Amino acid sequence: MTELAARALDGIGLLDSLTAAEREALGRTCRWRRYASGEQIIDRSSDSRDVFFVIGGAVRVVIYSLSGREIALDDITAGGVFGELAALDGSPRSASVMAIGETTVAAMTADQFLRVLREHPDVALALMRRLATVIRVSGARILDLSTLGANNRVHADLLALCRAAEVTREGHARIRPIPVHSDIAARVSTTRETVARVLNDLSRQGIVRRDADALVVLDVERLRDLVEEVRGE
Amino acid sequence: MTELAARALDGIGLLDSLTAAEREALGRTCRWRRYASGEQIIDRSSDSRDVFFVIGGAVRVVIYSLSGREIALDDITAGGVFGELAALDGSPRSASVMAIGETTVAAMTADQFLRVLREHPDVALALMRRLATVIRVSGARILDLSTLGANNRVHADLLALCRAAEVTREGHARIRPIPVHSDIAARVSTTRETVARVLNDLSRQGIVRRDADALVVLDVERLRDLVEEVRGE
Repeated sequence: MTELAARALDGIGLLDSLTAAEREALGRTCRWRRYASGEQIIDRSSDSRDVFFVIGGAVRVVIYSLSGREIALDDITAGGVFGELAALDGSPRSASVMAIGETTVAAMTADQFLRVLREHPDVALALMRRLATVIRVSGARILDLSTLGANNRVHADLLALCRAAEVTREGHARIRPIPVHSDIAARVSTTRETVARVLNDLSRQGIVRRDADALVVLDVERLRDLVEEVRGE
Repeated sequence: MTELAARALDGIGLLDSLTAAEREALGRTCRWRRYASGEQIIDRSSDSRDVFFVIGGAVRVVIYSLSGREIALDDITAGGVFGELAALDGSPRSASVMAIGETTVAAMTADQFLRVLREHPDVALALMRRLATVIRVSGARILDLSTLGANNRVHADLLALCRAAEVTREGHARIRPIPVHSDIAARVSTTRETVARVLNDLSRQGIVRRDADALVVLDVERLRDLVEEVRGE
């Protein structure tokens, strides 16, 4: 093992509480791998239970919908760890992981990883804190997504109105007459208040502007992106 | 302490690997509380870092959107644990917790809980497996919610078509002529395939039926529920 490899686990946050000698010994138990950008490191259907430390580069954790649409859960950069769920509970992989950019990882078997957690309570607590963070971030995302429905339908209704609208030379869509909030609300099954809030948000983001005689969509592309972001299958 | 209380932590799955004597000693360090149905046990804004064991009854973990809409994250029944995230990372509570039904809990300070995790690797690993499960369930939910957008917009479009449709004596809405999939797709910014799939799903659920001359919505109320389920604010 080169001197570089001997010290390679030094940057792994999870192992901060270990001595350099302990990290070096652990490094010797790992298998080292290099991946090109876009290469798959964990295939969701694989039955490997290894844990991976990101030595250099970065990886993206993704899940796939039935139709194959990719949903990025997290990016993990050098110093981070991934693949720990299957190592902990022995269940199948919950997500796929691919390299984004040239990436070097150190793979540790699940048995070895569990031994480290048993023997080093500080490492175990660091991992629990990391898992707690993932749970908090997921909760926030679930909250966002749960309240997205009505917003998304208002955006889609506005986009539909753009199609029938006059388009100016600058590419602005002039919707005339100005749509009545309660009409939009009725079409997409929400409240007038929600429509007003969504239009205010769009106006703050510079996507729409209210003129005397028209609602002007200044950036039809961004509106389309907003709709399709949660497009589903 | 009564004999009952002395043995009360025996049912807590997380503490399975401890001896009865160890559980009894831990039970003595807890504060015991009873809550009526609907009573708040953890307020999201509180700065307590206690961990709670559910001795009897059950609790619901909820997060709130800005508009106050409640989103249930999880129900935890007797034998379970909650409040561990704040104990682990010292950050504010991520959610509120309320009793559903008469509930008895044992509260342990964060310091005591962290001591248990350090001294008992099996308890630490059991907690890590529990956190891993929460992360897996959250990931599945994020996937569901992320693919919900287009389905929801198709439902909303169909509901809008019902309003203009003839309503039969049985309360069925007869949409005539049968809407063209690509028209719906264009209105709600999705693909023809998605519209076809959503209509098939609705037909399988007995919500719509295709007649020779009309698309019949047999259950307008259920369609409205589907739209409003993800209504947001």
